[in-house]
Amino acid sequence: MIRRRSVTLGIVAALLAASTALAQPDPLPSWNDGAAKRAILDFVARSTAEGGSDFVPVAERIAVFDNDGTLWTEQPVYFQFAFAIDRVKALAPQHPEWKTLEPFKSALVGDMAGLAATGEKGMLEIVAATHSGMTVEAFTKTVEDWIATARHPRFDRPYTELVYQPMLELLTLLRANRFKTFIVSGGGIEFMRPWTEKVYGIPPEQVVGSSGVVKYELRDGKPVLVKEAKVEFIDDGPGKPVGINRFIGRQPALAFGNSDGDQQMLEYTAGGAGLRFMGLVHHTDAVREFAYDRQSRIGKLDKAWDEAVQRKWIVVDMKADWKVIYPFERK
Amino acid sequence: MIRRRSVTLGIVAALLAASTALAQPDPLPSWNDGAAKRAILDFVARSTAEGGSDFVPVAERIAVFDNDGTLWTEQPVYFQFAFAIDRVKALAPQHPEWKTLEPFKSALVGDMAGLAATGEKGMLEIVAATHSGMTVEAFTKTVEDWIATARHPRFDRPYTELVYQPMLELLTLLRANRFKTFIVSGGGIEFMRPWTEKVYGIPPEQVVGSSGVVKYELRDGKPVLVKEAKVEFIDDGPGKPVGINRFIGRQPALAFGNSDGDQQMLEYTAGGAGLRFMGLVHHTDAVREFAYDRQSRIGKLDKAWDEAVQRKWIVVDMKADWKVIYPFERK
Repeated sequence: MIRRRSVTLGIVAALLAASTALAQPDPLPSWNDGAAKRAILDFVARSTAEGGSDFVPVAERIAVFDNDGTLWTEQPVYFQFAFAIDRVKALAPQHPEWKTLEPFKSALVGDMAGLAATGEKGMLEIVAATHSGMTVEAFTKTVEDWIATARHPRFDRPYTELVYQPMLELLTLLRANRFKTFIVSGGGIEFMRPWTEKVYGIPPEQVVGSSGVVKYELRDGKPVLVKEAKVEFIDDGPGKPVGINRFIGRQPALAFGNSDGDQQMLEYTAGGAGLRFMGLVHHTDAVREFAYDRQSRIGKLDKAWDEAVQRKWIVVDMKADWKVIYPFERK
Repeated sequence: MIRRRSVTLGIVAALLAASTALAQPDPLPSWNDGAAKRAILDFVARSTAEGGSDFVPVAERIAVFDNDGTLWTEQPVYFQFAFAIDRVKALAPQHPEWKTLEPFKSALVGDMAGLAATGEKGMLEIVAATHSGMTVEAFTKTVEDWIATARHPRFDRPYTELVYQPMLELLTLLRANRFKTFIVSGGGIEFMRPWTEKVYGIPPEQVVGSSGVVKYELRDGKPVLVKEAKVEFIDDGPGKPVGINRFIGRQPALAFGNSDGDQQMLEYTAGGAGLRFMGLVHHTDAVREFAYDRQSRIGKLDKAWDEAVQRKWIVVDMKADWKVIYPFERK
């Protein structure tokens, strides 16, 4: 009887062990088995293997991600620019002159070609008119309202549903391995912070971005921060290593981008001592998302791609490497 | 026998329970029992009591600390300025003109009155000459070397030993209660980051400070960040709420300072919703440290003190409230 029981227990234990092995979950289920996925898993295993030659101390496990085109979609226009145009429309009743004044005129009628013709100057005017002259608190509220209600023109879904499921899995995997995940984006810091924690699990203090000058004031005894119409910092291109140095103060162990605006961030990451991971998302899937690279007006990937190929950085082919693009595609 | 044993066990258990109660460690052993200590313990208890009306969610447990005069001593001169003067001396052989040129002339002979006479312009020239023209990496190395070797003129100890033991205990208590601790200092961000983690347990990415313009360059293919002789941001006075907004993006739940340069940071903290703690360190102990307030050239405490008294913020009296000032005083 006793013997029989221990045999039974032995079988149960063996079954449990087997089922545990079988149930070992794939941390990147939306990634096809390919060079990119293997490189990520290899990097995580080596960087966290205590005693190994590639071990990265926990304090130095800094992972930085571009946002537009790397964590969420950036076509047909940067989502922040869609927000700005919606703000122009909302503010138009207070600005009757906009009906005949570019770049507002084109923005109001949705003439994107006319808007594009106003160039960078026009874009900056629209950003200035919609991102300044209010408190940070009030601006945050307009972002929260817009994020909750606006819908992407092609997918007819909230913009925050257009985040990349495989990248969410990568963020989770890194954090589970005690990496601190940061956004380092050319986008506005105050446009991102209201929703990054909920959407990516990245808190406001781990968001680095472009910013305008902000001024401290007391209004009726209440302290407020007022957004001024003056650019303070552009967190793009060579600004990205500068932003990382300013906000984080450490050279990252991992960096992921998708465009030439991320080239210097990847170079800076590659320049650090020890094991490093540099990755680029290549937009190759016109059916499920968008396909663009060297010739694109938004998210141009040209020089950074060449450098990535030459230096054997990881280039993720969205069409080939990702089983799903967005969370809503999952069965 | 059995009975006797259980009686013995009962006594042992009771003794253990009593000793546990007795041994319940005081989280702030270097603080005398007074209003300041009680206010801190009350704030921590209320902010972390789940279900209580003053509960602060973990994500919002942001605690900000000024550095000079709040976490370490700032007399007879800001330690960063002592560093700058030592750098002037070290660099003098490469600048023979400094022997006759103010403010360097006074700095080289240690004529602090002559140096003071050169005013803010002189101070900025010394900072520019010693804090720019090198890479961030090289600057970090000079800070590390200086911190390891320089000694305070009065105490003849490394500057990093002149940190306040009671504030170290407060930082530890807050972190044990899942507060994220930040430095928000008028001091240079790159002067602090090399040693704050070791000394305060505050990692580089949680240090906010003043900064100069930094430029990204490739030198022989190696990415470097070069410090330029141009002020980018002064994290003092109204700059502190601006710096908090920029780096942290949340209104703090607790703020501690010691001078009028911290007034706006305390106001901004007080302006948030929910339970808040605002504290000032008042330098009252000329024997163990330094005594100064309204008339001081360094760390002037005047308007912020009046506001603290009026608004019932906590003013710590170093002489009365602190059993020891520095860690080395402990038996």
